[in-house]
Amino acid sequence: MAPLDDYLLACQKACEEEIRRLCSPDDGGASGLFDLILDYPLRGGKALRPALGIATCLGLGGRLEAVLPTAATLELYHNAFLIHDDIEDESWLRRGRPALHVDHGIPIAVNVGDAMMSLSLQPLLDNVERVGLGPALRILTAVARMTRQTVHGQAIELEWVRSNTWQLGDADYLAMVELKTSWYSFITPLQVGAIAAGARPEQLVPLEVLGRHLGAAFQITDDLLNLRADPEDYGKEIGGDLWEGKRTLMLLHALDHAAPGDQRRAVHILGLRRPTADHDVPMGDLLDGLVARGELSPSGHAELVTRLAGSGSTPAKNLDDIRWLYRLLHRTGSLDHARAVADRQADDAAAALATLDWFPPSHHRDVLSELVDYVHERTR
Amino acid sequence: MAPLDDYLLACQKACEEEIRRLCSPDDGGASGLFDLILDYPLRGGKALRPALGIATCLGLGGRLEAVLPTAATLELYHNAFLIHDDIEDESWLRRGRPALHVDHGIPIAVNVGDAMMSLSLQPLLDNVERVGLGPALRILTAVARMTRQTVHGQAIELEWVRSNTWQLGDADYLAMVELKTSWYSFITPLQVGAIAAGARPEQLVPLEVLGRHLGAAFQITDDLLNLRADPEDYGKEIGGDLWEGKRTLMLLHALDHAAPGDQRRAVHILGLRRPTADHDVPMGDLLDGLVARGELSPSGHAELVTRLAGSGSTPAKNLDDIRWLYRLLHRTGSLDHARAVADRQADDAAAALATLDWFPPSHHRDVLSELVDYVHERTR
Repeated sequence: MAPLDDYLLACQKACEEEIRRLCSPDDGGASGLFDLILDYPLRGGKALRPALGIATCLGLGGRLEAVLPTAATLELYHNAFLIHDDIEDESWLRRGRPALHVDHGIPIAVNVGDAMMSLSLQPLLDNVERVGLGPALRILTAVARMTRQTVHGQAIELEWVRSNTWQLGDADYLAMVELKTSWYSFITPLQVGAIAAGARPEQLVPLEVLGRHLGAAFQITDDLLNLRADPEDYGKEIGGDLWEGKRTLMLLHALDHAAPGDQRRAVHILGLRRPTADHDVPMGDLLDGLVARGELSPSGHAELVTRLAGSGSTPAKNLDDIRWLYRLLHRTGSLDHARAVADRQADDAAAALATLDWFPPSHHRDVLSELVDYVHERTR
Repeated sequence: MAPLDDYLLACQKACEEEIRRLCSPDDGGASGLFDLILDYPLRGGKALRPALGIATCLGLGGRLEAVLPTAATLELYHNAFLIHDDIEDESWLRRGRPALHVDHGIPIAVNVGDAMMSLSLQPLLDNVERVGLGPALRILTAVARMTRQTVHGQAIELEWVRSNTWQLGDADYLAMVELKTSWYSFITPLQVGAIAAGARPEQLVPLEVLGRHLGAAFQITDDLLNLRADPEDYGKEIGGDLWEGKRTLMLLHALDHAAPGDQRRAVHILGLRRPTADHDVPMGDLLDGLVARGELSPSGHAELVTRLAGSGSTPAKNLDDIRWLYRLLHRTGSLDHARAVADRQADDAAAALATLDWFPPSHHRDVLSELVDYVHERTR
């Protein structure tokens, strides 16, 4: 895998430089905005999206300069989505460090995400000089579609959690993931790379198919990795998707295949809110300690617990709930099912790549193959 | 003012229809996303930004169809900024109803704001068919600049609050407000209206001057209105800017003109965090009650108060602090100073409008005059 790693690293470096260039000092330097914009990109993501765009463009005979600003824009969007996602999912960690909203507060993190999206438009307009008017407008149209699909997918997922919807099959999940993940992480990077190299509109169709399957395999695997560690060992930070009640393929499969009693219990747990970061867990211990030391009466304890449970006074999920869900996923064979679906999606991606007979053999095409293999490997 | 009201109402209706059209049912209807996108726009804002664009376009001989989608886009951006602002400012009310994040949670509200920004790009691309390539690209460039300026201004303001910066003069404030408010609320609406009517680039310069001054007068007046009611009478929701520690012109003036002791006290208060909506105020009463009934020991009380004060264990502002700040603003004559600055900015706006000799007299130009007068009137 060393050649792929080298390629990804080169793309990451080129992109990082381009993003720094976009953050020109006359535009927000005073407020520290640019340091915050660069925070996530400099935490060392894999630059997968830029690499897909760059490999496609170069492999189809385009120039690096034709695609690099667009590739950097995709990396900006990706990191903006990550910042807003981390707020939306109440995630506390990102690439081994506190999430931006944990470090700087939700207000600043919301604005930094907005700023990254705002910075993305001008480089795409500058494409007119770079790749010509027609391709520039087609790239803009692709990006407009990408952002619409992404927020749509995100809205569906958030709504499933909010309304505790659970009677959903593999097809519902795959449709949501195509919107939420495939468009911005795979389909659009491949397509804008092709457009920057002067590809014809009909060539974009099989790239959409390739990106759709790659995205599904990638997201399912990501969700499986989120469950990799037993929450018994690692506590709250592992299995974050279960705390969040995220409708993953394995959770939906487990709900569909559980015995009626287990199904009811699982739906009940999923309807409980996630404990809030500040209070529930530490406050519980503190209150117990006060009662044990006789500093708090039982009725006072009950009153405080009710009030602390939040606006709706609804109870929260606890660690036992998460452990139980985790075991349910194993008991119903849902992890194996998800692995099989991801595997099939990766196979479909490999098949889609094999059909691209207008994409000549090259180092760059090999990189795309290796990326498909990489996603494939992750599913095992 | 009836003719102005009629004009604004007609623009609002036309815009609302256009926004509904942009929310086509094949794109997010299932997730309820569109209902949420339409929520703020349907709460009956004044549609000031669309009206500025429409009046400028029609007054310069352009067609309504040439500007309406762009005007609707500006209203979408405006409402997206409002949704994200309400999260950033921890505001609980918007147009007399709970803020979107209060009704639906921060996760969904962040995504709805992102969705509104995402929906804005395609109509601007469709301008190519509508107004021709050159004007369409100039409108896109204007919008790209607008969003950059807005998030930059927002970042400066958030950073001033976060770092408790206070040694700032009128010029610092006006520079921040130009970025935060003038560009998206006045300058860009005027300019895109002119571009849609085929204006020459040099005509955009005086429109920038007009919009800059209108924006400053508008924002200062808005901040004055936020202080209109005595917080003694209305509690937390009035004077929200003081709770937030927002660097308004009058607050900065008061800090500059306060006696040294008052200055220290004011800076200290501004350094305290805002109480959080859920806990501080009601929990304080609850804890006091428990202690009074002997259900909680004093040491247990102290421990709980520390823990509840949040991650940094920092104390929060209280109502007495806000009352004291409010009286300080009066004592230092800062409200009068702000009113005078707003008045001067409105005068400058009227003067800038008077210089537009290429803008023929018409019903539409009268609307712009009346809007300047309206902003002017609000300053008194």
